[in-house]
Amino acid sequence: MFTLHPTLCSESFPVGDMASGKLLLSADARYPWFILVPAIPDLRDLHDMERVDQIRALDDITALSRALTTLYTPDKINVAALGNMVPQLHIHVIARFTHDDAWPRPVWVYGQGRSYEETEREQSIANMKQALKI
Amino acid sequence: MFTLHPTLCSESFPVGDMASGKLLLSADARYPWFILVPAIPDLRDLHDMERVDQIRALDDITALSRALTTLYTPDKINVAALGNMVPQLHIHVIARFTHDDAWPRPVWVYGQGRSYEETEREQSIANMKQALKI
Repeated sequence: MFTLHPTLCSESFPVGDMASGKLLLSADARYPWFILVPAIPDLRDLHDMERVDQIRALDDITALSRALTTLYTPDKINVAALGNMVPQLHIHVIARFTHDDAWPRPVWVYGQGRSYEETEREQSIANMKQALKI
Repeated sequence: MFTLHPTLCSESFPVGDMASGKLLLSADARYPWFILVPAIPDLRDLHDMERVDQIRALDDITALSRALTTLYTPDKINVAALGNMVPQLHIHVIARFTHDDAWPRPVWVYGQGRSYEETEREQSIANMKQALKI
């Protein structure tokens, strides 16, 4: 049975369900940073997925990237499946700006995260749900 | 017309052509680190690609990940399209080990790269070409 890894739970907020799995908002408020977790048990790597499931995830990543572009007008979208810290397959989709804290470096391991204010977090989640119609 | 960005040229070695584009070996010998560059002009982000081209790239990423797994028996595969430094869309596919220099951090911006010895580099390229039949 698919269950979300406890570290992913503790470092994010639930947004909703996409076709391929769970959509989360990263708890680090410095970036518009979403995380897609394919709802398949015991997945570690992208290449372990069946092709049909990969394509479903790809379509979700594309929809999420386009929604981020519409909502935030970023300079770049970063897409990454790393999983060195949390073994459960999860895909980061992050809107980046040339003026953001880590630019041009990747967001991981750069400085301390900033916590969301509750209203800011709820607004970010509501905006994304509306953009994705989920 | 598609041409490889000069920074990608200078920081990698050509391996061959896959269905979706050019395969490169990163010049940093600390990790088995390959880079796929879809052969489409003026691409910046994954979500700018047509779906058929995305799926072609996805199939290449899967083949490359499986070849890395067979050749190196890594602990994890990292897949990422960042592009904050080099605007041309390129996808990193990297074999990671729990004993490698950066683990569990991402490989980017961690320490100085190590240059390949010529024989080591040629062997890495030859092994990957054989594994991918390219």
